[in-house]
Amino acid sequence: MTSRWKALLVTLVLSLACAGGAGAAEPMVRGTGDLGIVIERAAGTVLVVDTTARAILSRVEGLGDLSHASAVFSRDERYAYVFGRDGGLTKVDILSGKVVKRVVQSGNSIGGAISQDGRLVAVSNYKPGGVKIFDAGTLDLVADIPADYGAGDPSKVVGLVDAPGHKFVFSLWDGGEIWMVDMTDPNSPVTTKFEDIGIQPYDALISGDGRYYIAGLFGEDGMALLDLWHPEAGVKRVLDGYGRGEQKLPVYKMPHLEGWAIADGHAFVPAVGRHEVLVISLGTWQEVARIPVHGQPVFVMARPDGRQVWVNFALPANDTVQVIDVPSRRIVKTLTPGKGVLHMEFTPRGEEVWVSVRDRDKIIVYDTARIEPVTELPADKPSGIFFTARAHRIGL
Amino acid sequence: MTSRWKALLVTLVLSLACAGGAGAAEPMVRGTGDLGIVIERAAGTVLVVDTTARAILSRVEGLGDLSHASAVFSRDERYAYVFGRDGGLTKVDILSGKVVKRVVQSGNSIGGAISQDGRLVAVSNYKPGGVKIFDAGTLDLVADIPADYGAGDPSKVVGLVDAPGHKFVFSLWDGGEIWMVDMTDPNSPVTTKFEDIGIQPYDALISGDGRYYIAGLFGEDGMALLDLWHPEAGVKRVLDGYGRGEQKLPVYKMPHLEGWAIADGHAFVPAVGRHEVLVISLGTWQEVARIPVHGQPVFVMARPDGRQVWVNFALPANDTVQVIDVPSRRIVKTLTPGKGVLHMEFTPRGEEVWVSVRDRDKIIVYDTARIEPVTELPADKPSGIFFTARAHRIGL
Repeated sequence: MTSRWKALLVTLVLSLACAGGAGAAEPMVRGTGDLGIVIERAAGTVLVVDTTARAILSRVEGLGDLSHASAVFSRDERYAYVFGRDGGLTKVDILSGKVVKRVVQSGNSIGGAISQDGRLVAVSNYKPGGVKIFDAGTLDLVADIPADYGAGDPSKVVGLVDAPGHKFVFSLWDGGEIWMVDMTDPNSPVTTKFEDIGIQPYDALISGDGRYYIAGLFGEDGMALLDLWHPEAGVKRVLDGYGRGEQKLPVYKMPHLEGWAIADGHAFVPAVGRHEVLVISLGTWQEVARIPVHGQPVFVMARPDGRQVWVNFALPANDTVQVIDVPSRRIVKTLTPGKGVLHMEFTPRGEEVWVSVRDRDKIIVYDTARIEPVTELPADKPSGIFFTARAHRIGL
Repeated sequence: MTSRWKALLVTLVLSLACAGGAGAAEPMVRGTGDLGIVIERAAGTVLVVDTTARAILSRVEGLGDLSHASAVFSRDERYAYVFGRDGGLTKVDILSGKVVKRVVQSGNSIGGAISQDGRLVAVSNYKPGGVKIFDAGTLDLVADIPADYGAGDPSKVVGLVDAPGHKFVFSLWDGGEIWMVDMTDPNSPVTTKFEDIGIQPYDALISGDGRYYIAGLFGEDGMALLDLWHPEAGVKRVLDGYGRGEQKLPVYKMPHLEGWAIADGHAFVPAVGRHEVLVISLGTWQEVARIPVHGQPVFVMARPDGRQVWVNFALPANDTVQVIDVPSRRIVKTLTPGKGVLHMEFTPRGEEVWVSVRDRDKIIVYDTARIEPVTELPADKPSGIFFTARAHRIGL
């Protein structure tokens, strides 16, 4: 079936689903804790999904270029904020399946975050560089932070995350700096700058407790670590061997750092350019093991209970997913969902995982105890999958 | 103001709130991620609350004896399941503020849990002993597990929690056993029994990742630890000094084990009968420090980012809350909300905490960064506070 036919099929299913009840224009009366969205990257649309019924509830159109899109959720879990590659920030009401508001806030953006209290949404930009911060209710601009680092243009900004204390933390690609912005008073952002943290930070992550901010470096090996419990100690260099310098194979895709899995006191980390998952001891930041895998890992994600780690891969191995058993550090299952496995999202308590398979125009849902497929859902070139439970998590 | 007047005030506020919109009979159209309930123990009612607006949305009546009540939430975060002392299991629709269904399933119950997939609700009972498991949709009985241990009557059951793999785990007060029930097939529960785990387990907890089940013992010192990743290794004894045997002071109230805080690689644990919080190293289960506090601790709860631990106390110190800074292990603030501080609940990402103050008939909301009160809400003898984000967490 072509992707156009699949899209039509989704539309048909949605029409039938709505025939017996309120139309898509009327918001649903229901809880929102088991909802989520799936990015349809080519069509510029998102699907609203229900993880209890394993069903598609609506398709929302008109979100622009979603080729590298991500999303965060309002603290009431009703609204998704979708960050598009074209600088678009779109607020979607998942109960009505409609766009509430859309602003094109830059020429090219790379991701965003929502503040601890849910009142502010921040977007990190490439063109022009810098960070813009919006009121989560109205999408009115609250703060514009150009990321000037002493050279001409503002720096491209990457690795933007939220942190406890109403903070946003991000890295300056051109500037080689990490900035921490305290938005406790939205009218008076307080910015703390950490300079000379390394060459070309390209992405970053924050640990699930919001304590450790870790930026990957494109221009050199090693990573930059900021302990937010002790910012006065400054940025330290860790994992000196980590980066492109250790590659033995061509790097088809830089791994996503967001995908670091924290489980059993260790971080499970995608190696760069190697067919390995690295196991890093938390606190000492020393590598303690390497697990051979099927290809170059992209996302390395822990099941919410930390007992399993699921891994997808760059081309030419992007048809495969492997499951690592954490205590034994062994691969217990190799799945082949199909070409173009782009993302995975666990249900909040981890009993199932949704996997997007772009080239087969489908989402496959797996039971994680048996590691077997449960059902499939049609989707038009699906990429990122984001469930509302992220609203309650730090750094997501 | 008397508690009756406070109750009238809440009713008045609710009437005004509803005057401009739909009545309480009509369910609200809204997200449910920022909602919760507050138990009003004397009146047998619960308040539905909104943590974004810091407001009371409705009062639900007719829940029976709530003198030792707790609650869990459906995975869509629309329904609360309230476990009453009188054996009542009540399903509340928090969008409409109404009781959907109520069953009195035993003569005396002590708590409950919801399965990983949200399809089953389990209740642990005193009279008669055992566990009953219900369909979360209909409250129809699915399984009856009498907890027979070879003596006459079924054992009283305590420390019931959910665990990954559609499991429930609980302890037999009379039998001195821990049972693990796998409900993957609801029609064929598979029970694994661990015998001779110690005398009179009185409560238990499960770690946030669902791995460690730890039961406290009333009849002897020490605790019983079951590693659910390695059930074949059986139950081990840990913390030999922990219990009533070490007491230097009369024990006014056995501390809640649910209140164990996991932060920075350590568990922060209420001492029994002492004015101390114990710091236990995870994994080795050795005590590494004791923090002197204002009274006998009852709940010792970590802010979701693990940077702070909040502690309340048994009589005669139950008017006080202390805040411990985790890295320095020092008390950074002592608050006196008033007599009868019974429970505390953090907002999902920890920026605020709600504290119930029974004898002042109010909830006080604190900002956790400044550790200052933000607002107060009237409530009739409030005890437990439960926010919907628990739906997404293991063991809550």
